[in-house]
Amino acid sequence: MSLKILFSARPGLWDDYEAPFRAALDEAGIVAELGPGVGPPETVDYIVYAPNPDLRDFAPYTRLKAVLSLWAGVETIAGNETLTAPLTRMADPGLKEGMTEWVMGHVLHHHLNIGHALARQSGTWEPYVPPLARERRVAVLGLGELGGAVARALAALGFDVSGWSRRPREIEGVRCVSGPDGLTEALAGAHFVICLLPGTPKTESIVDTAALGSTAPGAVLINPGRGTLIDDDAVIEALDAGQLGHAVLDVFRTEPLPETHPFWAHTGITVTPHVASETRPTTAARFIAENIRRSEDGKALLALVDRASGY
Amino acid sequence: MSLKILFSARPGLWDDYEAPFRAALDEAGIVAELGPGVGPPETVDYIVYAPNPDLRDFAPYTRLKAVLSLWAGVETIAGNETLTAPLTRMADPGLKEGMTEWVMGHVLHHHLNIGHALARQSGTWEPYVPPLARERRVAVLGLGELGGAVARALAALGFDVSGWSRRPREIEGVRCVSGPDGLTEALAGAHFVICLLPGTPKTESIVDTAALGSTAPGAVLINPGRGTLIDDDAVIEALDAGQLGHAVLDVFRTEPLPETHPFWAHTGITVTPHVASETRPTTAARFIAENIRRSEDGKALLALVDRASGY
Ligand SMILES: NC(=O)c1ccc[n+]([C@@H]2O[C@H](COP(=O)([O-])OP(=O)(O)OC[C@H]3O[C@@H](n4cnc5c(N)ncnc54)[C@H](OP(=O)(O)O)[C@@H]3O)[C@@H](O)[C@H]2O)c1
Ligand SMILES: NC(=O)c1ccc[n+]([C@@H]2O[C@H](COP(=O)([O-])OP(=O)(O)OC[C@H]3O[C@@H](n4cnc5c(N)ncnc54)[C@H](OP(=O)(O)O)[C@@H]3O)[C@@H](O)[C@H]2O)c1
Repeated sequence: MSLKILFSARPGLWDDYEAPFRAALDEAGIVAELGPGVGPPETVDYIVYAPNPDLRDFAPYTRLKAVLSLWAGVETIAGNETLTAPLTRMADPGLKEGMTEWVMGHVLHHHLNIGHALARQSGTWEPYVPPLARERRVAVLGLGELGGAVARALAALGFDVSGWSRRPREIEGVRCVSGPDGLTEALAGAHFVICLLPGTPKTESIVDTAALGSTAPGAVLINPGRGTLIDDDAVIEALDAGQLGHAVLDVFRTEPLPETHPFWAHTGITVTPHVASETRPTTAARFIAENIRRSEDGKALLALVDRASGY
Repeated sequence: MSLKILFSARPGLWDDYEAPFRAALDEAGIVAELGPGVGPPETVDYIVYAPNPDLRDFAPYTRLKAVLSLWAGVETIAGNETLTAPLTRMADPGLKEGMTEWVMGHVLHHHLNIGHALARQSGTWEPYVPPLARERRVAVLGLGELGGAVARALAALGFDVSGWSRRPREIEGVRCVSGPDGLTEALAGAHFVICLLPGTPKTESIVDTAALGSTAPGAVLINPGRGTLIDDDAVIEALDAGQLGHAVLDVFRTEPLPETHPFWAHTGITVTPHVASETRPTTAARFIAENIRRSEDGKALLALVDRASGY
């Protein structure tokens, strides 16, 4: 029996994904008609999905067994009431590795004050010795697939790591806290704050003036989660007041970040263009093929989104 | 019984070390007269040593039980024939941690191309996705206290790590090689080369034109070991030819690096002022107190230098 799998994403993405998907489906022993033109709606079994303004109404997809998101963040679709089939997120190993490397690199850049060294390349021999990682507190907000991996890696390198999640978690070497009091506890005296929460109504502007007020003075904020997690004005005010020493921001309320947005020009902010961790076609295609295999075999889906929580 | 411990180092260092040393000796239950003025030579039991032009002749120290170096590198004293007592190096945990953090930070800086992002802070949204660590080969030259820790940490983050030492070594997750053929093997196709060898006659200019020719084109050289490990001219030529993409150099044949040295002005070189890893007074003092305790108890000394090999 052959399945019908609709690839629904912005134009262009199909070129990168076609070959990896065909290979991954073959590997998983799945026979399917696959592509952006598959239809009509009432015959489609699965939708592989990346945010796409053309597909907002899932009601006509009456046969749909699951929507499989290519991205880890699902805020544009999680609240869509026309979608009644299960929704899964992306959680491939490449995504976790890329995010861990990106966060670790930016944390160490500021921990070691590499910028200071780079600005002294004209003959100034001025030894400066940074503290050790174990003398620095890091707060990781969000301890899911990505935040958990990041917290573990930072702790393994010696940082003094606290992690915050909605439900209680246990991660070896990490002080795990949860709930509203947990947030205050995690942030208290933190030299680095890493945001790896999903974008949901509950996490909207969670990094606000109050949150930023409880870190160590001169703390570094790193946001590779979602633009909605931070209050943009509060971040700029905290930087200008010296309460924040620097911010590295990868995600924004509007992307691409408009040229006129004050983040670009602020010397205390490093903007990166939503590159912290890219879904990699080969591993992502395998992850989705495995989920289709599981669905066909009647097994539980991986990285199933809890629609009520929005992530 | 009270011991006599001479603290022999450049002036100024005593101020940083006096309190930590007194505390560490107390903790180890050692009663001692300790300081820069302790003597006369024939009454001295131990010398705590940092490179010091005033102490070149150890012959008068007839009672000497050991010389305990404050630094990890002992090239200025290992070949001194007037010294017949055992010589130990520094190997405190802080040194290992600091070096691991420094190397990891500089590797990730180039792996992620953070410089590229920093140069695009004026409104240019230009996504660039680096390869994953597991797609990058790293050669760690020297697998001792520091090189071993660095190789382990890089492998734990996912890098594809080869390590080279004089004698065969085994480190989980690291492809360990030794001997002259091993060097060629470790360097073959490496994207990063980390030098953590000691300065000895055998390691002099080991990173020369031939060695640099076998890395991946555009490789990044990171030298926190000793200035004598690299052939300065060969490094500049390899950078100018594009065979090396960048060099991060922390140690030099002359330190401070003279203002007129071409390394400073070269845009492909980041100079750091011998700060990769500082001996930290508290942990270093404990390490040396433990070695004195061992010596007094007739136990084997930690980090004993093999005088014939020079490290
Ligand atoms: N910049 C990039 O390139 C990039 C790439 C991939 C992903 N992302 C972003 O990273 C986010 C995290 O990804 P992930 O895979 O780690 O997600 P995940 O596995 O769903 O983990 C989310 C974490 O956030 C916690 N959380 C959610 N709502 C919370 C709340 N109201 N209060 C406290 N904690 C809350 C969750 O708590 P529980 O553990 O209790 O559920 C969980 O620990 C994604 O949502 C996406 O926005 C960015
Ligand atoms: N920049 C800084 O701030 C800083 C701070 C501390 C130390 N350092 C430097 O780092 C160096 C390494 O420190 P460490 O504590 O790791 O030293 P270590 O424990 O003595 O290790 C030295 C390593 O180099 C290998 N080696 C020595 N000679 C070799 C040769 N001819 N061929 C191949 N391999 C050879 C050794 O091989 P085996 O395993 O076979 O013995 C060993 O693996 C020090 O000597 C010092 O120069 C720099």
